[in-house]
Amino acid sequence: MNGNRFGRLFQVTTFGESHGEAMGCTVSGCPAGLELSEEDIQADLDRRKPGQSMITTSRGEPDDVSIKSGIQDGYTTGTPIGMVIQNKDARSGKYEPFITAPRPSHGDFTYSAKFGTRNWGGGGRSSARETVNWVAAGAIAKKLLEQEGIELKAHVNQIGDIEAPEVSFEEIKAHSEENDVRCAHPETAEQMQELIAQYQEEGDSIGGSIYFEAQGVPVGLGAPRFDSLSARLGQAMMAVPATTAFEFGLGREAREWTGKERNDDWEFDSDGNPTPVENDHGGIQGGISSGEPIYGEVTLHAPTSIPKSQQTADWETGELKEEQVIGRHDPVLPPRGVPVVEAMLALTLVDFMLLSGRINPDRVDDQPGEYDTDYHPSNPNNE
Amino acid sequence: MNGNRFGRLFQVTTFGESHGEAMGCTVSGCPAGLELSEEDIQADLDRRKPGQSMITTSRGEPDDVSIKSGIQDGYTTGTPIGMVIQNKDARSGKYEPFITAPRPSHGDFTYSAKFGTRNWGGGGRSSARETVNWVAAGAIAKKLLEQEGIELKAHVNQIGDIEAPEVSFEEIKAHSEENDVRCAHPETAEQMQELIAQYQEEGDSIGGSIYFEAQGVPVGLGAPRFDSLSARLGQAMMAVPATTAFEFGLGREAREWTGKERNDDWEFDSDGNPTPVENDHGGIQGGISSGEPIYGEVTLHAPTSIPKSQQTADWETGELKEEQVIGRHDPVLPPRGVPVVEAMLALTLVDFMLLSGRINPDRVDDQPGEYDTDYHPSNPNNE
Amino acid sequence: MNGNRFGRLFQVTTFGESHGEAMGCTVSGCPAGLELSEEDIQADLDRRKPGQSMITTSRGEPDDVSIKSGIQDGYTTGTPIGMVIQNKDARSGKYEPFITAPRPSHGDFTYSAKFGTRNWGGGGRSSARETVNWVAAGAIAKKLLEQEGIELKAHVNQIGDIEAPEVSFEEIKAHSEENDVRCAHPETAEQMQELIAQYQEEGDSIGGSIYFEAQGVPVGLGAPRFDSLSARLGQAMMAVPATTAFEFGLGREAREWTGKERNDDWEFDSDGNPTPVENDHGGIQGGISSGEPIYGEVTLHAPTSIPKSQQTADWETGELKEEQVIGRHDPVLPPRGVPVVEAMLALTLVDFMLLSGRINPDRVDDQPGEYDTDYHPSNPNNE
Amino acid sequence: MNGNRFGRLFQVTTFGESHGEAMGCTVSGCPAGLELSEEDIQADLDRRKPGQSMITTSRGEPDDVSIKSGIQDGYTTGTPIGMVIQNKDARSGKYEPFITAPRPSHGDFTYSAKFGTRNWGGGGRSSARETVNWVAAGAIAKKLLEQEGIELKAHVNQIGDIEAPEVSFEEIKAHSEENDVRCAHPETAEQMQELIAQYQEEGDSIGGSIYFEAQGVPVGLGAPRFDSLSARLGQAMMAVPATTAFEFGLGREAREWTGKERNDDWEFDSDGNPTPVENDHGGIQGGISSGEPIYGEVTLHAPTSIPKSQQTADWETGELKEEQVIGRHDPVLPPRGVPVVEAMLALTLVDFMLLSGRINPDRVDDQPGEYDTDYHPSNPNNE
Repeated sequence: MNGNRFGRLFQVTTFGESHGEAMGCTVSGCPAGLELSEEDIQADLDRRKPGQSMITTSRGEPDDVSIKSGIQDGYTTGTPIGMVIQNKDARSGKYEPFITAPRPSHGDFTYSAKFGTRNWGGGGRSSARETVNWVAAGAIAKKLLEQEGIELKAHVNQIGDIEAPEVSFEEIKAHSEENDVRCAHPETAEQMQELIAQYQEEGDSIGGSIYFEAQGVPVGLGAPRFDSLSARLGQAMMAVPATTAFEFGLGREAREWTGKERNDDWEFDSDGNPTPVENDHGGIQGGISSGEPIYGEVTLHAPTSIPKSQQTADWETGELKEEQVIGRHDPVLPPRGVPVVEAMLALTLVDFMLLSGRINPDRVDDQPGEYDTDYHPSNPNNE
Repeated sequence: MNGNRFGRLFQVTTFGESHGEAMGCTVSGCPAGLELSEEDIQADLDRRKPGQSMITTSRGEPDDVSIKSGIQDGYTTGTPIGMVIQNKDARSGKYEPFITAPRPSHGDFTYSAKFGTRNWGGGGRSSARETVNWVAAGAIAKKLLEQEGIELKAHVNQIGDIEAPEVSFEEIKAHSEENDVRCAHPETAEQMQELIAQYQEEGDSIGGSIYFEAQGVPVGLGAPRFDSLSARLGQAMMAVPATTAFEFGLGREAREWTGKERNDDWEFDSDGNPTPVENDHGGIQGGISSGEPIYGEVTLHAPTSIPKSQQTADWETGELKEEQVIGRHDPVLPPRGVPVVEAMLALTLVDFMLLSGRINPDRVDDQPGEYDTDYHPSNPNNE
Repeated sequence: MNGNRFGRLFQVTTFGESHGEAMGCTVSGCPAGLELSEEDIQADLDRRKPGQSMITTSRGEPDDVSIKSGIQDGYTTGTPIGMVIQNKDARSGKYEPFITAPRPSHGDFTYSAKFGTRNWGGGGRSSARETVNWVAAGAIAKKLLEQEGIELKAHVNQIGDIEAPEVSFEEIKAHSEENDVRCAHPETAEQMQELIAQYQEEGDSIGGSIYFEAQGVPVGLGAPRFDSLSARLGQAMMAVPATTAFEFGLGREAREWTGKERNDDWEFDSDGNPTPVENDHGGIQGGISSGEPIYGEVTLHAPTSIPKSQQTADWETGELKEEQVIGRHDPVLPPRGVPVVEAMLALTLVDFMLLSGRINPDRVDDQPGEYDTDYHPSNPNNE
Repeated sequence: MNGNRFGRLFQVTTFGESHGEAMGCTVSGCPAGLELSEEDIQADLDRRKPGQSMITTSRGEPDDVSIKSGIQDGYTTGTPIGMVIQNKDARSGKYEPFITAPRPSHGDFTYSAKFGTRNWGGGGRSSARETVNWVAAGAIAKKLLEQEGIELKAHVNQIGDIEAPEVSFEEIKAHSEENDVRCAHPETAEQMQELIAQYQEEGDSIGGSIYFEAQGVPVGLGAPRFDSLSARLGQAMMAVPATTAFEFGLGREAREWTGKERNDDWEFDSDGNPTPVENDHGGIQGGISSGEPIYGEVTLHAPTSIPKSQQTADWETGELKEEQVIGRHDPVLPPRGVPVVEAMLALTLVDFMLLSGRINPDRVDDQPGEYDTDYHPSNPNNE
């Protein structure tokens, strides 16, 4: 089992190495009848694409996605959607020094120890380049969720010790894409940018975090216990490269709150249904969605590839040596991580929408009826 | 869950439609260090390739496989192996009459009813063209099994009412590829060929069966009950297009045998280990491999695409009409099914070899040590 | 992975050995609101229970099921249903001679070789006693299917060389439980009974087969390719103890039919939907249900435990010896196998009903509304 | 899929409600030959048992585990281990007021909304009582890990605003069980106890956190990407009731560290293998274990059941009302959560030990050879 699959009913399977020929992603379980084009996917790919600003690697990858199957006349057919993204600008030469001398805190050593070998160009399979596949799959999930009235968005809420004040979901939607840092609070964004530039000059890098939120999630998503919504979000987010912490609702802070403070009383909504007065619970109660917005944070450590000199141990020569990771690298990860976190959030939610029967697994409702018969899954009596 | 995945530890994920842009297959769980090239895979692809003889469709597909990831310096890296096979010779025009008028006993109607739409060119996702992916994955499984001393082979043992006499495993290896029918018994092969030609002239097609055998399978493969070796072989073989029956050991005939007749007494082998005197049990006892050869049969019904006129019902016009499936089709399936059955047998066995710990999931032993360290999985004490 | 799980969404997990303290089965994925009692389950357990007639083992097991969770006020709650069935009449003494001297064609040797040990009393985990769990889970699946208008039934259609003529689904429902052999054709049942008695006297046993059929299955069940309805039925049925062959539709006979003969033309049903003129395809086309009855056969070899003397090899003493399996055994398996085959058919179908969205995974519709709110999964807008 | 399963190869399946008849857990995939008794499991169950001190609920549950299968002569047989724990001291009466008036921040509302009903006694399936199953399964995992030289331990490192100073693994092993709070730093433990008592008097509750650490974990556990060690730990820990945050290594703090600060240089260990100078990476690099200790923290919010009056909305009467959760409840969760977190850590690690081939899936090495033959899985050539 080598970790390239995500999802129970909305299944994503990936392949590819940073400097390999291509990245690839197969999405199974997407219902038929969803209007989908390469453009829909490209939009999100462009948000995580390298070379989009001063604070991202200068590697020049167009990241053009090519859909190989699962689409007909602009709509999904319910069968697997195969996607391939060619790698264009790979320059492995710079990595030769590290073949047997692992870069500090990278996957170089662990991959070689596990497999006895590794694809070393650009970090190979351990490179964050893999997330191009996740974003491609996530874009499809987002389209399905939109049809169900579910909106989700993320933004960068902290870089180093610079933290953004709380901003509303509306503000995130309005401003997170307005600056290179992807922070929805313009003033903070500027300070973050300066801080990043400073570390970049020093040949160092810095950590940060991403805030995510989903609205319009119906009550009842998530299975009790091991497959709770929080457990599956935990897996999804902790899989994001460089993530060291996942929090939802009050997160880490909950340890200092009392029951009375944190508990959310019940009142009635306009439909006369029980609804919580506050949302300190973060939209999940007993592992199941409560109908309130789901929000949380993901912490990404500083990029491990830095120009500053570091010590490594060459297992071939048996010598210690100083090395500098030249290559082309990001000084900070959250800005490009925003679409990745959104993708993992979307993939987790769409899976539960299918698992709870809220999205029909065979076909969406607004599909083109061209070849339709009366045997609609939601019409078991064939009426 | 839309059925494009096979295997628990040796995982195959596929995509592609008969007349789509490309077929694709991602293999996860293949240990690192296996010497592997596109040629290794091509050899088997050429055996199932169309246009290889008079009794196969004339569709001209080179079926060249392109490996996109998971290989370095000619060896697997333990990470996903992405493969793509372009579709070259697709002519969908001929299928237009069937878009709303399903071909008899095809998947046309069921796919459209389930998904509300379907990729209709050449049968789309329901086409046996999908098996090109299975054969590609199976070729990798075969290489792994060979290293463990496991050999497997299949041949066509019946076409229509012409049945081949029992032949030995050695004969199958020696003769099954010598004729277009892939029957290891030359005289029978000739009769089969004549019979096929006759039906072909009549614009009809005919059914048949494939015999498979695996030797060198160690004792202990298969998990009790639902994941028994026979249960998983059952799933694997019944997934082969057009299969209507799966049998192992005595198969259907076992219903007429008594316990005393069928039971295999025990004796000792040269190592002093218990070994069955006969192999009426087909190499599986209590769902677990006994160390004896595993053998069985798969029945494939006649191709459903025939030039002979048949009646269909057009759900758009509401009219009944006579139609002839022109296209380019095989008059019989087993000859091209042989490598497919071998592939499913190999995929099932290699999965159990990994599940039983007989093949190391991280890396094979004879791998290139170039980047090796002392942390070999089979060396937990790091000695 | 040790094979005690079945189902993707309707999940069955089992434990227990023939002479252990108890058998147990946990069913997850059964929607809330299904009226269910121990009596519903007991009815089927009594059909497979030992000691019910002259032609079954005399072992005296009441097989009383005890539901430990998942039910409240007579309805399922949507959470796991834990069931335990105590073993009462275990007499392991008779098995001591076989601890190191495997019974011919049993799982004794393969289990010991795989695990290095085994629970030897009564065959331990390899005993068909395990199927008591399957029948318990199957009874729940049947109740769910009945609510969807799906009926299924099996009967014994062959014992040794005595084969029953074709009988209708109505006849099977009417007569299969009228005789000890569970053959829906009374005259044939008598001959079968005589044949069985004859082998029983000789201290031998005999094989046979079971015919199964399901009606009311909607169009569209089954996922393309590896998870086709036929592939999953193949796994389910090949898991049934002593099964050596699985066939559906024409089964093995399909090898002798031409395309023109086997293909089923299309006409229109009273609703104006396409429907096949015949059902030679067995209710499955392209791996997906066609709406026609699903039918097939399962072959069970003769019981391996026979009083007749057989040779075994004792791996402790290194000696060959003659042994007789005294114990208490069935002379033939199909009569008690009928409810087991029905259970596996029901478990396979209910799983696909959930996977296709036809059965709501969270709750059935006719549930008691006592604690209901308006947030019904099938009511995403909470109207 | 209703969330009662954990693990890929070491599979845990659970059932049971807080006030139901019994809790149950089936463990599949435990190799044969592990010495195991009910006492081994009871030891950990007693650590999470209610009524063990002033700061735990007074509910009187002996939590005696009964093993129903999978063990013979004191050793595992490689087949499923069925365990049942009876519920003895259930008093549901106190919960009647909440049937249609959900307790604030409990699972009452979400369960009822999802399933249309729920087992309301004591929280039913959503109760933390479920973790008795996890601890039982975890105890088996721990025994397997110990044989491989892997040790793991947890302790309470924060309650409210009282945080314990950093303590060594040795100190945790020595002192965490010495006080009711399970904090390995005695002085802090006292302060925590006072704080808890204070909130308890006020009829309120308080949050806290658990620190966990595993030593002796070999290099190479974890699959790249979605199944990385950190991703699977994320799922495991976020499934722990009341968890709102999971962190490993520097966790949330990593957002303020630079790459140079956080990166761990390489040196050589005494065997000449590369080893990190520090362990800021928390034992996981590129999602794979580095051989360094794995450590992290889990935050548990305050218990939601408090005597203090809170507002709820009764969906039957449509009235708002004040309610007090009388029942018998814990004022703080971490003390009893320690064995639960250890269990989830053990279950995650043992699964990867099996997945990486480090633990033989069929049988451990030091098993009793009584029924052994020479066909050892680790001896494919049967030598």
